[in-house]
Amino acid sequence: MEIAKLKELTRQTAQKLFGGGVKMDPPFKLWREFNPQLAKDLSLHITGKLYSRTVITIQERQMVAIASLASMGKTEELKLHINGALNVGVEPHKVAEVLYQISTYAGVPAMNEGLTVLKDILVELNKWPISTSDHK
Amino acid sequence: MEIAKLKELTRQTAQKLFGGGVKMDPPFKLWREFNPQLAKDLSLHITGKLYSRTVITIQERQMVAIASLASMGKTEELKLHINGALNVGVEPHKVAEVLYQISTYAGVPAMNEGLTVLKDILVELNKWPISTSDHK
Amino acid sequence: MEIAKLKELTRQTAQKLFGGGVKMDPPFKLWREFNPQLAKDLSLHITGKLYSRTVITIQERQMVAIASLASMGKTEELKLHINGALNVGVEPHKVAEVLYQISTYAGVPAMNEGLTVLKDILVELNKWPISTSDHK
Amino acid sequence: MEIAKLKELTRQTAQKLFGGGVKMDPPFKLWREFNPQLAKDLSLHITGKLYSRTVITIQERQMVAIASLASMGKTEELKLHINGALNVGVEPHKVAEVLYQISTYAGVPAMNEGLTVLKDILVELNKWPISTSDHK
Amino acid sequence: MEIAKLKELTRQTAQKLFGGGVKMDPPFKLWREFNPQLAKDLSLHITGKLYSRTVITIQERQMVAIASLASMGKTEELKLHINGALNVGVEPHKVAEVLYQISTYAGVPAMNEGLTVLKDILVELNKWPISTSDHK
Amino acid sequence: MEIAKLKELTRQTAQKLFGGGVKMDPPFKLWREFNPQLAKDLSLHITGKLYSRTVITIQERQMVAIASLASMGKTEELKLHINGALNVGVEPHKVAEVLYQISTYAGVPAMNEGLTVLKDILVELNKWPISTSDHK
Repeated sequence: MEIAKLKELTRQTAQKLFGGGVKMDPPFKLWREFNPQLAKDLSLHITGKLYSRTVITIQERQMVAIASLASMGKTEELKLHINGALNVGVEPHKVAEVLYQISTYAGVPAMNEGLTVLKDILVELNKWPISTSDHK
Repeated sequence: MEIAKLKELTRQTAQKLFGGGVKMDPPFKLWREFNPQLAKDLSLHITGKLYSRTVITIQERQMVAIASLASMGKTEELKLHINGALNVGVEPHKVAEVLYQISTYAGVPAMNEGLTVLKDILVELNKWPISTSDHK
Repeated sequence: MEIAKLKELTRQTAQKLFGGGVKMDPPFKLWREFNPQLAKDLSLHITGKLYSRTVITIQERQMVAIASLASMGKTEELKLHINGALNVGVEPHKVAEVLYQISTYAGVPAMNEGLTVLKDILVELNKWPISTSDHK
Repeated sequence: MEIAKLKELTRQTAQKLFGGGVKMDPPFKLWREFNPQLAKDLSLHITGKLYSRTVITIQERQMVAIASLASMGKTEELKLHINGALNVGVEPHKVAEVLYQISTYAGVPAMNEGLTVLKDILVELNKWPISTSDHK
Repeated sequence: MEIAKLKELTRQTAQKLFGGGVKMDPPFKLWREFNPQLAKDLSLHITGKLYSRTVITIQERQMVAIASLASMGKTEELKLHINGALNVGVEPHKVAEVLYQISTYAGVPAMNEGLTVLKDILVELNKWPISTSDHK
Repeated sequence: MEIAKLKELTRQTAQKLFGGGVKMDPPFKLWREFNPQLAKDLSLHITGKLYSRTVITIQERQMVAIASLASMGKTEELKLHINGALNVGVEPHKVAEVLYQISTYAGVPAMNEGLTVLKDILVELNKWPISTSDHK
């Protein structure tokens, strides 16, 4: 892919995922403070080349990110990607369901951490309490 | 849910996920050797109550399981759920894509372990080599 | 087990473990906000069926919970179960000893996190400083 | 503690824990091949000073070790300590119960790995199948 | 090694690593509150016997500590050892480079946590912003 | 950096690290079987852009890789990087020392796994037994 096209793709995907919802400093900002070239390389590699691929949908990709991050207890990054999931239209109940699912593999405390992050985001977006009747 | 219905749902979901593909002993068999009642309780709870829910599709659920298990390096269980994913119709390229995605969060060695498990299963199913042209 | 009996057993075990000591919101409250049915299922399964078993004593069970949670750095849940351990009569020095023991397997930082949680609880319960002469 | 007494205590505790059951090379052997002084220091520190303490019983200590190691998926070391637990008289059903308990915190695959190790040891000791009727 | 010499070596190494930079309570203080004898044993064993060895340099040792702690997300201990690294003369850019390196193995969120700890320390030491031109 | 130069740098660094010692399939081979473009991108990004940087020496970088991988129990990748460390001239005793060091943070079983991998490589290279007298 030519570089101009990759930059544009990176920008568009970043906008979709992180352009709305709760206000958070993206890791890119931290990277750039340390090393602008590395920040650019990482961003083009991760957001431009990986997150922009379409073999799975962007919604599936965010569910996968949430499952991975919650399983490892990376709550800061999890907040970023739950927000990203909501930004691309994943329903809050589907995010919660992903977290119920990983409790079997990563344990109940990992699920609890994830649900707490999800609740905090929904509170901040004035979408809490979540309805408790419209899901199976 | 009444118990007879839960048992039937458990049986159906287990059949969909683990009834085909590579031959593997399910954990249920191990549990039953230690404690038949616990085996039954766990199976009804996990397969009947959790895996049978429809808030996310069974294909999404398997992608979530793969992301979680690969992130934690649980290769034995990962094999079970990659096989389950293929059984419910998740394309091998989508399984691989889930593994590419988690490399960002869980590291490249976690991805490598996952791809090795996927390759082993595809070899066993006579579906290897995977085509390398039909995915983005 | 019939359901009424299971509910009563769940209630009794929850009361023993979480009915005293430091004030903390149990995970059950969080689960219920998301999904009342799942909350009930999880509670009956974990507290009613697992924590109520008597193959090991409830004190041994809490030491096991502490070893597991401290080894994985799940400090929020660890606080809940250290409090639970104290509630069922595990001596503070025995809790500390469990944390010394896991330093060998999970590393010294995992022990330090655990000791910090234990100290925080003892401070909150006005039982700090711990005596330093009456153990081994 | 004077050094001669510490050495004798180390020897006695090592004998209790690792002197019977399945044949396994203890880590001490590996350490000594790399660095005899470090091997001696580690052994006196871990087995002599930590494992020999009596604030918790040696049976409780082994249950704690099993909970920690199974939670982290350290199966080689887990085998050593499950064997040690059986050597000091922890019943196989109590070992299994510890593994059921940690499934809640560390996930079901961690429990499965632990049960597999336990089963392998019991098979090797001609104590398999485990009775399935005499526990709760 | 005789005990007086070991104590002196422990004191000297502790002074080099933790005697300057940001103010933090060392784990030794926490250990001593629980168990003075264990605190002394651990300190002599870890700081006196391990950290004082010269097979690798003290600067290499701190890079290794940072790589290990950042990979496991032990941020409190990581802060202690990043401070220690700076105290023995490891350049901030070298610390950052260690964190870039482990992103491949432990994932980008682990790197982000590490960079955040490093930035916090540099801010506290009035050495922030880090220069962005003098590396590579 | 222009692409031709990056490719050459990638090739040179890969040759230094993985061109000698024990025979192992590099992850690149696995990646390429799944996705040649991704394999190329990952290789240029990791080996070309990250491993080729000179802020830390290539020997320090390998010690960091070993510390990270051993701490997380990624033994397959650890084998690759211990071999790489030996290829760029890190002495076996320095590799062992890195593993002793991480025992404090990641636990003794993590160290044991690492020493076993190191021993296996040295055996395969006919450099076992390691001398036990020439290090501190």
